[in-house]
Amino acid sequence: MALPKKKLQGLVAATVTPMTETGEINFCIIDQYVDYLVNEQGMKNIFVNGSTGEGLSLSVPERRQLAEEWVTKGKNKMDHVIIHVGALSLKDSQELAQHAAEIGADGIAVIAPFFFKPVNKDALIAFLKEVAAAAPEVPFYYYHIPALTGVKIRAEELLDGIQDEIPTFQGLKFSDVDLLDFGQCVDQNSQRQFDLLFGVDEQLLSALAMGATGAVGSTYNYLGKKTNQMLEAFERQDLSLALNYQLYIQRFMNYVIKLGLGVAQTKAIITLVSGIQMGPPRLPLQKASKEFTLHAEAKLKSLESQCFH
Amino acid sequence: MALPKKKLQGLVAATVTPMTETGEINFCIIDQYVDYLVNEQGMKNIFVNGSTGEGLSLSVPERRQLAEEWVTKGKNKMDHVIIHVGALSLKDSQELAQHAAEIGADGIAVIAPFFFKPVNKDALIAFLKEVAAAAPEVPFYYYHIPALTGVKIRAEELLDGIQDEIPTFQGLKFSDVDLLDFGQCVDQNSQRQFDLLFGVDEQLLSALAMGATGAVGSTYNYLGKKTNQMLEAFERQDLSLALNYQLYIQRFMNYVIKLGLGVAQTKAIITLVSGIQMGPPRLPLQKASKEFTLHAEAKLKSLESQCFH
Amino acid sequence: MALPKKKLQGLVAATVTPMTETGEINFCIIDQYVDYLVNEQGMKNIFVNGSTGEGLSLSVPERRQLAEEWVTKGKNKMDHVIIHVGALSLKDSQELAQHAAEIGADGIAVIAPFFFKPVNKDALIAFLKEVAAAAPEVPFYYYHIPALTGVKIRAEELLDGIQDEIPTFQGLKFSDVDLLDFGQCVDQNSQRQFDLLFGVDEQLLSALAMGATGAVGSTYNYLGKKTNQMLEAFERQDLSLALNYQLYIQRFMNYVIKLGLGVAQTKAIITLVSGIQMGPPRLPLQKASKEFTLHAEAKLKSLESQCFH
Amino acid sequence: MALPKKKLQGLVAATVTPMTETGEINFCIIDQYVDYLVNEQGMKNIFVNGSTGEGLSLSVPERRQLAEEWVTKGKNKMDHVIIHVGALSLKDSQELAQHAAEIGADGIAVIAPFFFKPVNKDALIAFLKEVAAAAPEVPFYYYHIPALTGVKIRAEELLDGIQDEIPTFQGLKFSDVDLLDFGQCVDQNSQRQFDLLFGVDEQLLSALAMGATGAVGSTYNYLGKKTNQMLEAFERQDLSLALNYQLYIQRFMNYVIKLGLGVAQTKAIITLVSGIQMGPPRLPLQKASKEFTLHAEAKLKSLESQCFH
Repeated sequence: MALPKKKLQGLVAATVTPMTETGEINFCIIDQYVDYLVNEQGMKNIFVNGSTGEGLSLSVPERRQLAEEWVTKGKNKMDHVIIHVGALSLKDSQELAQHAAEIGADGIAVIAPFFFKPVNKDALIAFLKEVAAAAPEVPFYYYHIPALTGVKIRAEELLDGIQDEIPTFQGLKFSDVDLLDFGQCVDQNSQRQFDLLFGVDEQLLSALAMGATGAVGSTYNYLGKKTNQMLEAFERQDLSLALNYQLYIQRFMNYVIKLGLGVAQTKAIITLVSGIQMGPPRLPLQKASKEFTLHAEAKLKSLESQCFH
Repeated sequence: MALPKKKLQGLVAATVTPMTETGEINFCIIDQYVDYLVNEQGMKNIFVNGSTGEGLSLSVPERRQLAEEWVTKGKNKMDHVIIHVGALSLKDSQELAQHAAEIGADGIAVIAPFFFKPVNKDALIAFLKEVAAAAPEVPFYYYHIPALTGVKIRAEELLDGIQDEIPTFQGLKFSDVDLLDFGQCVDQNSQRQFDLLFGVDEQLLSALAMGATGAVGSTYNYLGKKTNQMLEAFERQDLSLALNYQLYIQRFMNYVIKLGLGVAQTKAIITLVSGIQMGPPRLPLQKASKEFTLHAEAKLKSLESQCFH
Repeated sequence: MALPKKKLQGLVAATVTPMTETGEINFCIIDQYVDYLVNEQGMKNIFVNGSTGEGLSLSVPERRQLAEEWVTKGKNKMDHVIIHVGALSLKDSQELAQHAAEIGADGIAVIAPFFFKPVNKDALIAFLKEVAAAAPEVPFYYYHIPALTGVKIRAEELLDGIQDEIPTFQGLKFSDVDLLDFGQCVDQNSQRQFDLLFGVDEQLLSALAMGATGAVGSTYNYLGKKTNQMLEAFERQDLSLALNYQLYIQRFMNYVIKLGLGVAQTKAIITLVSGIQMGPPRLPLQKASKEFTLHAEAKLKSLESQCFH
Repeated sequence: MALPKKKLQGLVAATVTPMTETGEINFCIIDQYVDYLVNEQGMKNIFVNGSTGEGLSLSVPERRQLAEEWVTKGKNKMDHVIIHVGALSLKDSQELAQHAAEIGADGIAVIAPFFFKPVNKDALIAFLKEVAAAAPEVPFYYYHIPALTGVKIRAEELLDGIQDEIPTFQGLKFSDVDLLDFGQCVDQNSQRQFDLLFGVDEQLLSALAMGATGAVGSTYNYLGKKTNQMLEAFERQDLSLALNYQLYIQRFMNYVIKLGLGVAQTKAIITLVSGIQMGPPRLPLQKASKEFTLHAEAKLKSLESQCFH
């Protein structure tokens, strides 16, 4: 297989899917969105058609077209464009994986199937393997998010021997708070052969201390710059400053989580911060309330005027 | 809208999807399967492409083709062929609903979207309404299965006023053990305008006592005849005999549930009883073990030799 | 062992513990409460110091004194006074069991310990056995309520062979909606040697159809008479009338459950219906709101004026 | 109120309760146990009668006697002897709090009541306040462990304004993996007026990065020394070494958790490491299997021979 052009480092923004008021994908905004992520948030990597991107609410033809748009517009601007190709139907997932390979994606990611749930590691691996085999040259990431999928197979068990089954395996998006499991993944990764990307943005610092090599998340669409500052402080071993950045980020996250944070609300916040109209989500999600947006805006402003203590 | 040709009565078999050893749909068995259900199990209604049918593991083109096969082969043999058209993507669901109308299905059913979950009744209704509108002449059923979907909006609340929103609404597949909720659906149905179909086969008798008008389930593929006898005893108000039938059925269900009953195992049991090769399931499900099949077979035989006490 | 003086039949009211405004037990009301239950609600059996009775919020000396009061005041008026003696500490439970024997209780009941949870049937039986052995002449009931305790050991498995381990075992308070499990208990009880008392009042009819021999619950404090009418209709095999009673009862229960029904609210309703001041609950429970009581009262009145349809 | 004699720092060992083979408390071992903790594990603080100590499986008289023994034997050897006085019954909890004050405990801790669960912050505070008031001179700790109690009131919300209600409030044992909640507690503690003690031993490093001021746990009975080395590395900002210690500790924890780690198994491990016979647990817990002990012993030996990579 071809190696990734360069090592995936730092933050990966999980993109939303811009939509029109009638719920159709708004392709023509993608270019502008890429530039915003690069220039305003310092992002070099994106994760497309994932849960933040409402990937599972899109039809297969829509997912193909959208993936293509991101790869085209990200070219020469992004280091890594990773396409999420997970689906409940193995056939759909294989089709999307093959397509991602054809359009030159830098990686593919797959969530565990979650209607029928794999009953053990072997069943999960069997499913993932069939998808990975449809894109035999593309780095493969497993998207571990047990709270959403109900698939509680531990990541550290999955990792054990996975490259024998899936030669393209390149790493994890680990969206869980079980840092024993995460630590035991780190423990297996002493050659740093895998990317162990943490996916619970509001407590990223805890995972950095535990050995995370990067992070994937939706908040990097609007708190990417601030989070990069946290990463730099951590790299310099200035833990106190890193903690100050983390607590600052948490103040906003804690506030909006209590108001009810979902993909619709994430779209509203990005629209607020970027000035790009991300539009409403598709059903069954419903547009963020005007009240949410006003509160989120006021909180952002109030935080910007704070100094770190 | 056109009214259903006749009132849906009694049992509805949730069909499995026959597959070849390589996981492709085995269309040519459908005809034989229909005859078996009618002749051996006394079934007059089927529920196609639902969870038992691995509907969500099939691609949209597969679901269309399979629905068509069932409608064609069921014609003049079945009273009601109901097509499950639920999907995570509203677009997919709409396409399937429109197709079901075109091929002359007797009803469509929709599970609540369960990746992004509707946060309240309004969001759920909004989603269902869009699907129903794609088949404006076809009776619409909501498939309520909170343990699988995590969507806990009570059915009795959903029912309240639903025909104002969804004029084609015809009833529920109620797959839950909350018989307060179910009873309050019955209480709203005093004109018996809706079909309130219970979906937890192993305790159907409890729901009949609470006013169920029928039932949908996978076990009617192999215990349909026995369950029809229970229904007849209940109709005659012979509760003691009805209970004997229910306990008999439970003895088998309790046994195979402990062995691990899923769609793969259901396929194995139907194969056993019908002699028709239903094949393995598709990934992420895995074929029933030989051991399971042997144990299930032995249990069936041992039960057949029992008298009712 | 001594046999129960007579077979436990029909309904068992789970009593609340009357308290003063300062949260002390109001012993002097017990006598009046017994008369109310007998005369106004037609109750012949009570279940004391259970969850409805805030048994686990009382100290061991309080539980002893209260049990004694109920046994004394219930004498010659009640057929069965069952004392709940379950506790997190085996020592406490044994002390209470022995005391119940000394005061002449007609039965003892034990909830599964739920802080440390028994990991399997053997561990649960070992615990229950030690308690039962402290009252070797007193009929023993297991109080199965998995949603509250998190102890999910199936009742039908527990029942299998239990009298070899616990010779005084007399039956179950089955407070769960898994009627496969319940039915399989019924199936083991063909000699009707056990009392299988259902504990989810709002769906009692479903359990009667499944073979329940009686019921224990808090609502029989105020809906006892109406529920007895349902039982009589069921006995006469008049299922349609029985269902009408059940739906009538559900209308009230569904309403107050949505308002937030707990022990505090149950005390308020009993006070309303009986005219006896049951007082507030003890912390961590908090007094029912005035609003709750007004709404419950209005609903009761509105239901009384309804005819059965 | 009297201030704590000195600031609580570093690790707090949650002690087990030594028992004889017949399940009685083995008081005469306590002295030896204290010396072991001080000399072999470097512990200066203990948390007594908590969940590790089977506090809720003991009767109130037993808890009093045991608390007294620990305070007496810990005098001049331990900096802080904290007595857990939580109970389902407020009366019991108050009695234990008052007793802890009388015997000169350095702090009391209270778990949220978990049979009836406080429905909101106010109900929880009302309960805690009544307990704290029974020991008005003793530093008070709230024991936050939502996975065990089901009480999901966020710690950061509880902390907000708590000293107005509970003047003796001194801090938290935070036994949860939600580090957003924990971080927001840290954010409120900029004066470091509270002790924020983390309680998930196997991922302590993640909480140190997030601002934990110390830790309480059962593993410090046998991995206290090693964990102290991790704390020292962290203090020196040697994150890489601290991570190596954490991963080393995790290797053992991960292994025994998979074998089934509970209080019984913790007693077996401490017996192994200390040579002091901690005995079996009390029912409903059951003695660790011989197999568990052998495997744990072999794993400890194998780890001791490893170098840090």
